[in-house]
Amino acid sequence: MASILTRDDIETPAVLVDLAIAARNIRRFQDHADAAGLKARPHIKTHKLPHLARLQIEAGAVGITCQKVSEAEAMADGDPAITNILITYNIVGTAKLARLQRLAERVKLAVVADSEAVAGGLSAAFADAAAPLTVLVECDTGARRCGVTSPEAARDLALAIDRLPGLVFGGLMTYPPAGGAADAHVFLKSAKGSIEAAGLAVQIVTSGGTPDIWQAKTDGVVSEYRPGTYVYNDRSLVARGVAGLEDCALTVLATVVSVPGPDRAIVDAGSKILTSDLLGLSGHGTVLGHPEIIIDQLSEEHGRLVSKGPIGLSVGDRISIVPNHACVVTNMVDVVQVKMENGRYEPWPVAARGCVT
Amino acid sequence: MASILTRDDIETPAVLVDLAIAARNIRRFQDHADAAGLKARPHIKTHKLPHLARLQIEAGAVGITCQKVSEAEAMADGDPAITNILITYNIVGTAKLARLQRLAERVKLAVVADSEAVAGGLSAAFADAAAPLTVLVECDTGARRCGVTSPEAARDLALAIDRLPGLVFGGLMTYPPAGGAADAHVFLKSAKGSIEAAGLAVQIVTSGGTPDIWQAKTDGVVSEYRPGTYVYNDRSLVARGVAGLEDCALTVLATVVSVPGPDRAIVDAGSKILTSDLLGLSGHGTVLGHPEIIIDQLSEEHGRLVSKGPIGLSVGDRISIVPNHACVVTNMVDVVQVKMENGRYEPWPVAARGCVT
Repeated sequence: MASILTRDDIETPAVLVDLAIAARNIRRFQDHADAAGLKARPHIKTHKLPHLARLQIEAGAVGITCQKVSEAEAMADGDPAITNILITYNIVGTAKLARLQRLAERVKLAVVADSEAVAGGLSAAFADAAAPLTVLVECDTGARRCGVTSPEAARDLALAIDRLPGLVFGGLMTYPPAGGAADAHVFLKSAKGSIEAAGLAVQIVTSGGTPDIWQAKTDGVVSEYRPGTYVYNDRSLVARGVAGLEDCALTVLATVVSVPGPDRAIVDAGSKILTSDLLGLSGHGTVLGHPEIIIDQLSEEHGRLVSKGPIGLSVGDRISIVPNHACVVTNMVDVVQVKMENGRYEPWPVAARGCVT
Repeated sequence: MASILTRDDIETPAVLVDLAIAARNIRRFQDHADAAGLKARPHIKTHKLPHLARLQIEAGAVGITCQKVSEAEAMADGDPAITNILITYNIVGTAKLARLQRLAERVKLAVVADSEAVAGGLSAAFADAAAPLTVLVECDTGARRCGVTSPEAARDLALAIDRLPGLVFGGLMTYPPAGGAADAHVFLKSAKGSIEAAGLAVQIVTSGGTPDIWQAKTDGVVSEYRPGTYVYNDRSLVARGVAGLEDCALTVLATVVSVPGPDRAIVDAGSKILTSDLLGLSGHGTVLGHPEIIIDQLSEEHGRLVSKGPIGLSVGDRISIVPNHACVVTNMVDVVQVKMENGRYEPWPVAARGCVT
């Protein structure tokens, strides 16, 4: 195949994925989940690749998580192994609900709701469907994004979902803030107790987030975990001590296009591939093999590298960058170059790139 | 055509472009350039749409500016009116130089260089070409990105380009920092004088940037101006006083998916459409018609809206957001919904989206 490349043949900037590292990351978390008695339901937002979702399922995941209907559609279209999808998002609007209905006819689907308004829309769309839609109650356990804000509100919404035609209450979902797992467990335990006391079963209690991945446990309440970034890791997770640089499966390959001063070089990777996400860090990525270099500024097509001493780079040199945030980098490119077992690179289309609806 | 929509039919989040406003912005700058004796060469990075490039050319632009070879290819492929392209980037690497050669066979092309290394690569690629390649010297007039850093270095590189087979020296190019036009003019004037004293003509002196667009003038040296964002404008330009909200042609349409508290709402537009670009601003966009609302936090698929008083929004409400930075938003979507004269929306593929190589 002409499209199979050596690293030197890859045009820059490009997003490279080391499949062996990704597979090791998948295995490592699945082993942790198995030992902790947790089901794994990885979030595909990080890789957006049906084949990597398949590898996660083959490793033992019960299904996948998507954030938007269009992501779920891309995954269901992309690989027949993907038959069980949780969309952790309030689905609102006629067009999206119609797409959700069609998707529910071909995969086992669950969604979330955090209000009666959202649940009511889902009910209207599924009242006449062949099978009811499973709806989990999203709980705000500290992230201050979506979610009901008290265990009592979770109970009331669970009961409302149970009463609505076309829906079946499936359990509780949260995305806790980093470091907030303990508080989340208190909230979820209380909500689960209230709902069970009201006579409803809570089949699934699902939590997520890679930063706390190695602390993930049931604590008697969580049944399922949804890590995303763990498959690739990134500079933000290295900074948090969750992963080492050697665990980072995704890198950005860039070429030096200018060395305008002794302590400065410009590469062809800017915010159009690295993005402006900082995630609390300073600088825009780690240059592998050059710990002395800081990427101190990005414009759309330029990354500026600076160092205290001589920069030691020439026009035409190629560097590898571990980006701050892997998920958003994946979303910038139509294709990632995947390093296979034989050391060659295969271009894989990023099937769920740009799926915002 | 089924794909022509009313605003209510557009699925969110979506990028909307008001064609009448864009046309007015194009006309306004062209009139300014004409009055100032400047040629206009708009940068297509903002719209990435061949048809808008055509409108810019029909209004009087001498050609367009692109940043990457792939952008120029998309433009040349997209509209036969696009026959004159300046790529303001150091083109490095065998594959890119081969693409540049092929592109030069079908459009009038010019590029830049800021080192003999870059010029040497261009020369090797064009030594046997049917026609020489026009190369401008990129000058760093304060932005500290690419560019030679002194007028003397500009002269030396101009002379080197003139000596290299396959190349013809075309002039000087800079992208000054915002507010730095006066310093840039001093640099450019000195460089132009040195080069002319050495016996070379300086055909083009090209500057750019929308923030200083209404101050753009020749000052006896600049012959051409490359504004980008002016075609759409954005929140950063409104904050600088360069445009009003009514001049912003690009907006993001979003739906409220959660109202978890009286002073907080969550919309379905996150960093995957608004991006994390701040451009020195606080907040992630202006909600039209709601000056009291701040978009204080983005995650990939969520935008959080907060207000001091009641937020006054309900699940299902749709809002329009003027983003911080229009260019990067355009790059996040495969299609923009263009508002036509009849008030309806036509989906236009963003031909140069994701063109990083």
